[in-house]
Amino acid sequence: VNAGLDIPTVAGGVMEREIAEQPAAWRRLLSQSDAISDAARRIRGQDPAFVMFIARGTSDHAALYGKYLAEVMCGFPAGSWSPSTTTLYGATPRLDRCLVIALSQSGGSPDLVQSLASARRGGALTLAITNDPASPLAAEAELRLDLHAGPERAVAATKSYTAELLTLAVLFGELAGSPIAEVDRLPEWGESVLSAPDGERAIADAAQRFSGDRFVLAGRGYSSATAHEGALKLMETCYVSAAGFSGADLIHGPFAMIDSTVATIAIAPPGRGGDAMQDALLRLRAVGSPLLLIGPGGSAPGELSVSLPREVPETLAPLLEILPLQRLALAISRQRGIDADRPRGLLKVTLTT
Amino acid sequence: VNAGLDIPTVAGGVMEREIAEQPAAWRRLLSQSDAISDAARRIRGQDPAFVMFIARGTSDHAALYGKYLAEVMCGFPAGSWSPSTTTLYGATPRLDRCLVIALSQSGGSPDLVQSLASARRGGALTLAITNDPASPLAAEAELRLDLHAGPERAVAATKSYTAELLTLAVLFGELAGSPIAEVDRLPEWGESVLSAPDGERAIADAAQRFSGDRFVLAGRGYSSATAHEGALKLMETCYVSAAGFSGADLIHGPFAMIDSTVATIAIAPPGRGGDAMQDALLRLRAVGSPLLLIGPGGSAPGELSVSLPREVPETLAPLLEILPLQRLALAISRQRGIDADRPRGLLKVTLTT
Repeated sequence: VNAGLDIPTVAGGVMEREIAEQPAAWRRLLSQSDAISDAARRIRGQDPAFVMFIARGTSDHAALYGKYLAEVMCGFPAGSWSPSTTTLYGATPRLDRCLVIALSQSGGSPDLVQSLASARRGGALTLAITNDPASPLAAEAELRLDLHAGPERAVAATKSYTAELLTLAVLFGELAGSPIAEVDRLPEWGESVLSAPDGERAIADAAQRFSGDRFVLAGRGYSSATAHEGALKLMETCYVSAAGFSGADLIHGPFAMIDSTVATIAIAPPGRGGDAMQDALLRLRAVGSPLLLIGPGGSAPGELSVSLPREVPETLAPLLEILPLQRLALAISRQRGIDADRPRGLLKVTLTT
Repeated sequence: VNAGLDIPTVAGGVMEREIAEQPAAWRRLLSQSDAISDAARRIRGQDPAFVMFIARGTSDHAALYGKYLAEVMCGFPAGSWSPSTTTLYGATPRLDRCLVIALSQSGGSPDLVQSLASARRGGALTLAITNDPASPLAAEAELRLDLHAGPERAVAATKSYTAELLTLAVLFGELAGSPIAEVDRLPEWGESVLSAPDGERAIADAAQRFSGDRFVLAGRGYSSATAHEGALKLMETCYVSAAGFSGADLIHGPFAMIDSTVATIAIAPPGRGGDAMQDALLRLRAVGSPLLLIGPGGSAPGELSVSLPREVPETLAPLLEILPLQRLALAISRQRGIDADRPRGLLKVTLTT
C-alpha cells in the first residue's frame, strides 16, 4: 500500500499531511543538493548581470524571497518578468547576461512555458525550478532543478513553496560564494516549530479570536514573502480578504483601513527585517486589533505569538515563519466548515492565457 | 488671492479638487515635454540594458505601468528595487547599464533617497521623477523630471499619480523611438470621462450598492496598475479591505474568497489586456457579486459600467481608468462619513526606515 495515495476523509486532511511533510521534504532536497551546486557553477560561468523571475501565485512569493537573496547576497538586481508581457503583447525582451529563473510546482502552466521560451530566445540563461522534472517548463529550460517535494495534491501549495525557498537559499548561497551553513539544521527546526505545544495553542487561540473576514499581514525584507504567502493561504482556504504587505508599504496608506475588527499578523523574526517591523508593530498594537506575532513574543499582555528557534538566521526564517500560518489557515477553514483541500472555484494547475 | 490655497470645508473637498485638476495638469505637463525628450536622449546615449524602479505606495503602481511600457515598447526587462535591500541590509547592487527610475510625489522619503544614492554608486544611470524639482530625491539623481502637477495636499495621491503615468508614457515612447501620438488627446479625453453623466450615475450607483467592506479589483497588462491603485484609494479613504490583482493571478487562488458580499471592479478597456480579462469577468459574473466594469459595458443586465472613449490606445487607458475609481473612493468615503482628505493614521510624506 502506498501511503502517499491514501485520500484522507477529514476536511483539509491532504493539506494537513502536506504541511507535516515539509521537514522530511527539506531533508530529501538537501541530500540531493549537488544538483543545485552544479547549476550554480554553470550560472557563474556565464557571469549574469541581473536576475528575472517568472512565477505566479505562491511561486511568485518564493520569487520575492529569491529577489532579496539575489540582491543582498549577490548584488544582482532582480525583478519579476510579467508573463503577460509575452503572452498578451508578444514582446521580445533583450536578455543578454540575464539569468531567468522560472518557479512552478507543476511546471505545466502554458503562460510560464511561453515566457521562458521567449526569455531564452532573448538571450537569457534559463533555469526552471519545478516539482516535476518531466514538466514542459523543465523541458524548455537550459538548467533545471527538481524540488523533490513529492506529489502535492492539495490545491493550496505548502511543501512545494518551502522547497522553492530552500532551493533558492542554497542556490544563491552558492552563487554568492558563501553558502548559508545553517540550511542543514532546517529540517530539525521545522520539526520543532511544527511540534511545539506553545505554537499549537497560539494557533488554536488565533483561529478562535480571528472570527472576522478581514486580515492584514505584514513583514519586512525577507519576511515580506511570508506576509504575501500567508495572505494567499487565508484567501484560498478560508474565503476571507487577506492582504500581505511590506511593513513599510503598510504605513503608506493601507494602514488607514485597520480597526479592531481586522485581524493582524506581524512577522518579525530576530534580525534587521524584524527590527524594522517594530514601528508598524507599535502602530498595530495601538489600534487594538487582534494580533498574532510570528517572532519573539509578547511585550503586550495577552498577545498571541509563535516563536522561532533563536539561532535561525534571518535569511532562512521565511521557511519556518510560514509553517504556523499554513496551520492557521487550515484551522480557520475547518472552523468555518470549508474543505481546504478543495477550495471553491480553483484548480491545482491554472491555465492562463 | 491664490485659489490653490483655499481649504475647502466640505469633507474630501481637497481630493475632489485635485481629481478635477488632472486634465489641466496633463496639459501643463505636455506643454513642457521637451524636458522628457532631453532626458530620453541622455538615456539612449548610455544604452541601458535594463530598468529598475524605486517607489512606494501609489508611485509603485505607476512603476508597474512603467514596467509594461519598458518591456513591451522597449524590450527592456524591468524590475522594482526594494528600498529595504539598501536601507536594511546595506546591499550594494551592481548596476552597470541599468537605468534606475525613482518615482515619488514629494521626493522627500529618506529611504528612496538612500536607495537612489546606492544605485548611483553601483553604476546606474539615475532619473528622479518628482512633483518637487527641489526635493532631496531630485537633487540626488543625475537626471530629473518635474511632474508639474502643482501642490498636492490630499493624503490620497491622485493628480501626481496620473502625472507619473503620463511622464512614463512620453519617456518610454521616446526611448522606443515611437512616441505615442495620442498623448496629446489625453486632456480632452480626461475631461470627457470626468464630465460624462453616464459615468457619474454609475459611480453614484456603485457607491450605493457597494455597502460592504470587502473589495476586489482586477485588470490585466497595463491595466493591472489601475487595479492596484484603485484598491489603495479605497483602503486609504474608505477604510475597507480592497485588493488589486492581475486577472491572471486572481484565478490562481484569491478567487476562492469572492462571494456575493464582495464588491468587484473589473478593468477591461479595449485591447489585449481587456480581452484577456474576459475569462475572469465571466467567472466574476457567475459568482453574482456586485460588479463595476471599467470598459465597454454591460453584456449582463443591470451591470454598472463606465466607458472610456473608443479611440484610447491600451497603453494610455490607465490614465483614464483610474479617474472613475478615484471618484468612487471619494463618493464611498463621503457616504461613510469619512473625510478623505485626512485619513486616520496617515501622513502625506511617509518617513520609512
